[in-house]
Amino acid sequence: MNLGTLDDVFREQIADLYSAEQQLITALPKVEAAAQNDDLKRALRSHLEETKGHATRLELILAELGGEIPREHCKGMEGLLAEGDEIASASGDPTAKDAALIAAAQRVEHYEIAGYGTARALADHLGKATARDLLEQTLDEESAADSRLTRIATGGFLRSGVNQAANA
Amino acid sequence: MNLGTLDDVFREQIADLYSAEQQLITALPKVEAAAQNDDLKRALRSHLEETKGHATRLELILAELGGEIPREHCKGMEGLLAEGDEIASASGDPTAKDAALIAAAQRVEHYEIAGYGTARALADHLGKATARDLLEQTLDEESAADSRLTRIATGGFLRSGVNQAANA
Repeated sequence: MNLGTLDDVFREQIADLYSAEQQLITALPKVEAAAQNDDLKRALRSHLEETKGHATRLELILAELGGEIPREHCKGMEGLLAEGDEIASASGDPTAKDAALIAAAQRVEHYEIAGYGTARALADHLGKATARDLLEQTLDEESAADSRLTRIATGGFLRSGVNQAANA
Repeated sequence: MNLGTLDDVFREQIADLYSAEQQLITALPKVEAAAQNDDLKRALRSHLEETKGHATRLELILAELGGEIPREHCKGMEGLLAEGDEIASASGDPTAKDAALIAAAQRVEHYEIAGYGTARALADHLGKATARDLLEQTLDEESAADSRLTRIATGGFLRSGVNQAANA
């Protein structure tokens, strides 16, 4: 990896996020299959469609950047999804498993919120207005997905909420 | 993994966070050594001390839980730290590398914010008041660490900010 300029950092961040989204597109149907609660299943299904849109936005940004795109494999997302896999294959009570799946999904959302936040700020700094707007749209959708998971946890099976704080 | 009750989920979450903190205690000195900016180095050093305190709080909670503690290895944190390692060993410009290190560190902070948020809400739900208070103290410190990184990025080398959004 060579980080000679902030442009390199931006390119690397976008490539990392693209790998993260691709991994998530593969993983989300398995998470949905493991979930029991109907609202949770629906939210995961709808987030899969959003995630495909996030990947498309990153493709637009990568096309605009041109040149050679670093071949990233996002190890952060790989680790987060490995945790989700362990939970999906755990034995136990459906409600407890759903609570643990929501916890894993909110770690993923927070990872993406941090990543898109950085990328948006870099785009802003580097004067890449189109990329900035695309990144902001995704950032808003990731935050909304996180809030939706909190609502499911608080409304669905935990009166006092699985993860109100993850939104704080 | 067996998740028979929400108590099991809580125990699993605490064990996961404990592994995450232990890995972070090992990794932070390497990240600090790779950083160039003095404020960033200082923030990482001070966060190492805080992180040791977070591990101690989790030990208190684990002691209170008693019984057999699941032997977790937090794969999420492992992946996040592998990304940080790649950046730390990258060639390039010190400012660009510092910006990428901050981006990686903020992904770690957000991971922990999501994790402690979930754990605190579960402790609340399960009536574990002492654990809840300990988790809240750490959650506040993780959020403050994230804000400190944003301030360094915005004040240090990027007028418009590396990652104001990660705090949004």
